[in-house]
Amino acid sequence: MPDVTPEVAPTVLPEVLRGLGISPGRAAGRAYRMAGPPALPAVSGGFGGSADRAADPAAEAVLAVRGLEAAAGELAARAEAAADPAAREILEAQVMIAEDPVLRDEVEQLAAEGMDAAHAVDAACARHREALLAAGGYIAERAADLDDVRNRAVAAVLGLPMPGVPSPGHAFVLFAEDLAPADTVNLDPGTVLALVTEKGGPTSHTAILARALGLPAVVACAGATAVADGSWVSVDGGAGEVRTGIGEEKAAEVERAARAGRERLATASGPGRTSDGHPVKLMLNIGSVADAQAASGAEGVGLFRSEFLYLGRRSAPTHEEQAGAYAAVLRAFPGATVVIRTLDAGTDKPLPFLGLPSELNPALGVRGLRVARRRPEVLDAQLDAIAEAAAETGAETGGQPWVMAPMVTTAEEAASFAQRARVRGLTCVGAMVEVPAAALHADRLLRELDFLSIGTNDLSQYTFASDRQHGELADLLDPWQPALLELVARCAEAGLAAGKPVGVCGEAAADPLLATVFAGLGVTSLSMSARSLPAVRDALARHSLDQCRQNAELALAATGPAAARQAVAGVR
Amino acid sequence: MPDVTPEVAPTVLPEVLRGLGISPGRAAGRAYRMAGPPALPAVSGGFGGSADRAADPAAEAVLAVRGLEAAAGELAARAEAAADPAAREILEAQVMIAEDPVLRDEVEQLAAEGMDAAHAVDAACARHREALLAAGGYIAERAADLDDVRNRAVAAVLGLPMPGVPSPGHAFVLFAEDLAPADTVNLDPGTVLALVTEKGGPTSHTAILARALGLPAVVACAGATAVADGSWVSVDGGAGEVRTGIGEEKAAEVERAARAGRERLATASGPGRTSDGHPVKLMLNIGSVADAQAASGAEGVGLFRSEFLYLGRRSAPTHEEQAGAYAAVLRAFPGATVVIRTLDAGTDKPLPFLGLPSELNPALGVRGLRVARRRPEVLDAQLDAIAEAAAETGAETGGQPWVMAPMVTTAEEAASFAQRARVRGLTCVGAMVEVPAAALHADRLLRELDFLSIGTNDLSQYTFASDRQHGELADLLDPWQPALLELVARCAEAGLAAGKPVGVCGEAAADPLLATVFAGLGVTSLSMSARSLPAVRDALARHSLDQCRQNAELALAATGPAAARQAVAGVR
Repeated sequence: MPDVTPEVAPTVLPEVLRGLGISPGRAAGRAYRMAGPPALPAVSGGFGGSADRAADPAAEAVLAVRGLEAAAGELAARAEAAADPAAREILEAQVMIAEDPVLRDEVEQLAAEGMDAAHAVDAACARHREALLAAGGYIAERAADLDDVRNRAVAAVLGLPMPGVPSPGHAFVLFAEDLAPADTVNLDPGTVLALVTEKGGPTSHTAILARALGLPAVVACAGATAVADGSWVSVDGGAGEVRTGIGEEKAAEVERAARAGRERLATASGPGRTSDGHPVKLMLNIGSVADAQAASGAEGVGLFRSEFLYLGRRSAPTHEEQAGAYAAVLRAFPGATVVIRTLDAGTDKPLPFLGLPSELNPALGVRGLRVARRRPEVLDAQLDAIAEAAAETGAETGGQPWVMAPMVTTAEEAASFAQRARVRGLTCVGAMVEVPAAALHADRLLRELDFLSIGTNDLSQYTFASDRQHGELADLLDPWQPALLELVARCAEAGLAAGKPVGVCGEAAADPLLATVFAGLGVTSLSMSARSLPAVRDALARHSLDQCRQNAELALAATGPAAARQAVAGVR
Repeated sequence: MPDVTPEVAPTVLPEVLRGLGISPGRAAGRAYRMAGPPALPAVSGGFGGSADRAADPAAEAVLAVRGLEAAAGELAARAEAAADPAAREILEAQVMIAEDPVLRDEVEQLAAEGMDAAHAVDAACARHREALLAAGGYIAERAADLDDVRNRAVAAVLGLPMPGVPSPGHAFVLFAEDLAPADTVNLDPGTVLALVTEKGGPTSHTAILARALGLPAVVACAGATAVADGSWVSVDGGAGEVRTGIGEEKAAEVERAARAGRERLATASGPGRTSDGHPVKLMLNIGSVADAQAASGAEGVGLFRSEFLYLGRRSAPTHEEQAGAYAAVLRAFPGATVVIRTLDAGTDKPLPFLGLPSELNPALGVRGLRVARRRPEVLDAQLDAIAEAAAETGAETGGQPWVMAPMVTTAEEAASFAQRARVRGLTCVGAMVEVPAAALHADRLLRELDFLSIGTNDLSQYTFASDRQHGELADLLDPWQPALLELVARCAEAGLAAGKPVGVCGEAAADPLLATVFAGLGVTSLSMSARSLPAVRDALARHSLDQCRQNAELALAATGPAAARQAVAGVR
């Protein structure tokens, strides 16, 4: 019998799945899918009806309790493996829920009354969920943790794969319907080669995570969840292409080429410049003091998210704690610009100690600077701490922190925020431009402020009235949308007229080609995750300012985002 | 003992409460408050804990069942009194819930087990609620009806006022925390003189309802819910002032003056014109065929909401049903413009037969024209029916319906919608401008379309990233916000350049002073409820086009909405 090599006659034909490439780069490896929450078996009966009567109530009770035990065991293992203390704490709390004797008794009793094991777990968890929600506040926010316990226990009972990120024991390409923050809290960037999701958009959590980790990613990719576990695939996160059914050799070849490309980019260094020397500052988005210490090659911090100081707490951090954290970041970038964004909380990013009520449309609610309408003392305390850190480090670093507020909507709000910061001696005060009204009145905002920083994710969300987490509306949320670029242009023009800096700190800044468009529109800095920096530096260095301006004109005039991307890519 | 007349020495001093005047006019009468949902008595025990043990379980069981009976009785009386068949149907369904023997048994059992009556009602309803939600779809949407039953039954048990609109037996001023559609389904405009709410904004349900009924209204009025039931108050819905502690004589005087003012306006008639004859069409917003028949004095229909055909149904209306309804409206306005808006559904305005999943931010989700991404056949069927109605009535009325889509976001979507309408022979195709991106690209939209109609409520919501139902953000949602007016100006300029009509059909068009600003910006029509027409006609007739343009310039240049209103009112 002759030897048939897979390269010559592959039994599985290569197939190309297309989606939205939202984090550039290429990678290849074996595919593994993240399982979603398990579906309950169908039951008969409608309103007020109950689940099918199980044949052997005692056996179902045992099965149900084993499901809870399996969930507790798996969560305990994950807790032990968690590197991040906040993640570990959440997982340990989940173990306690799964081991709660009250929950266990209720599950046993429901099964004894004739419910099958899966429904017994589900029904008992539903009752506890009600109790949590009724308690309100911090307790109510634990409902999501309980839901995760329920999903794991039901999956164990039904013999379905455990929900969450798979652990095949080697590097792999992660396929999922979509990724939520809770799914990825334990994601190990060392073993995930690329991300591919069936849903999600260019500003979804998946996209933000992929760019933050520098992982190639394709979202809104039809067919992604049908790819077989263990099969070889390659991913092009720039073109938005996923090739399935490739051989192991082909995968190795793609990986070699990708590594060579990354090494080439990583050798570049220095400040952001077009090929003819026009400066566009390359800054970092960071979310903790540790991020600041790990970073290199950037010209400063364009967005220091201060939320980490407040997360998972029942009271605000102390003055000393805050001032210490800000001082540490300022010391990590001596002489460089460091932009601290004041707390960006809201009912979409809940902080228990703020006690904000739930909202029908949290993205359109009391968030960002608006929280100061209710809790002005939280903002004041934060500005006090930033001022203290500035005073403490000023002589040493020779610089002053820049401070900006999120979700500024009107010039009146900008003036009020600036006044609060300036009375504390902070001299460089700005605002995020995330709300269309703020972009429309960028010139008025700059009469009150020293700089603007455009958050493209939220600005897209509102300009196109499309939830940034909504996969189905991904086309509208594409950062290449000409109407979005028009608002960026308006801000940049206001900055040029006023002689004040206007940066982009949304994730769109990490798209190398789009970075040339922003430079052409007159944006003075681009802020992104450390991993995205080399490719953006490289793209700027390969375009003159005039070429950037030509790219900007082409993108603004295009009929839609795909046409804009194509027009600009065509002249490159 | 000398006689002390209340006029000379009032025992209660007059007090002025200030809020946002969102529906002009003055009124006076006795105040009555709408009770909110009853609070449960405190219980001991936390997670997994149960309610206090009642002293006499048998008595609690009787009390709990009586609570359900009281709720059923009150709902049955309201059902009988309901004029609107849809409202009656909802109320009758609620009576059935309150009389459900399964619910009653559960309440009795929980009370017998030791729960107090209020908690027994609450817990049994919570279980049924879970069952409803688990059933999903149409059934799940009944959860709100069950909540209302629960609130009424608990209120009856606790001896608290029944939630909902009070019925004091005479005309009164309604005070409430806020009004939701469910609260006002049975509101009798004949007995309500004015609306005052503690919360709510200029685009809240309260505001829309008040303008639709022509009732003076003040929202975001601090202290409103503390006004004593039965006390005399006067309301100025233009200035946003509520006077409490006035005497009956003063109230009668205010009412006399208000009546005289209304009579003066009602005598005017004819098309909308500035004092120097510049035409601004005065159109109607209608939501049913009956509205069309009742209307008079308008130049056509600027917004025919087609949702009434789809509400409360489990399947789409038939072709004949739809075509008949459209034909009836076209016949009611022979020779006049009638603008039919295609279905504006979404998870914020759920229609069971569409089967849309719930969304985290429904206002930023799949709504309006976006529903056609999932269910294109629903839009096609609607356009078929409109085309049929046009063909059927064309000879008779000498006109063609105009058709427009809600939530159009890009020129690409506009082109696709126009193509679908035009292949069916519909010749006048437009779009609502509700999304900032659409306003920014008004010129591109008008290359594809014949007209635009600006929905100021939604356009505000997105431009200011503020939920239109959110009382706390009322200042941002004020239709006098200069950045909103700038987007209106942009649309109007695009219309003038293209020689195509651009109207305003949001409720802001009903503000007489703002109507002069819109006219000055170049808007060619204003569409509103029939009751708002006389005051707008009067305001236009008292301003020349140049004065309107001056008003527009003042409003655009103002630093904020209050300054804009003041600047324009000052030159009136």
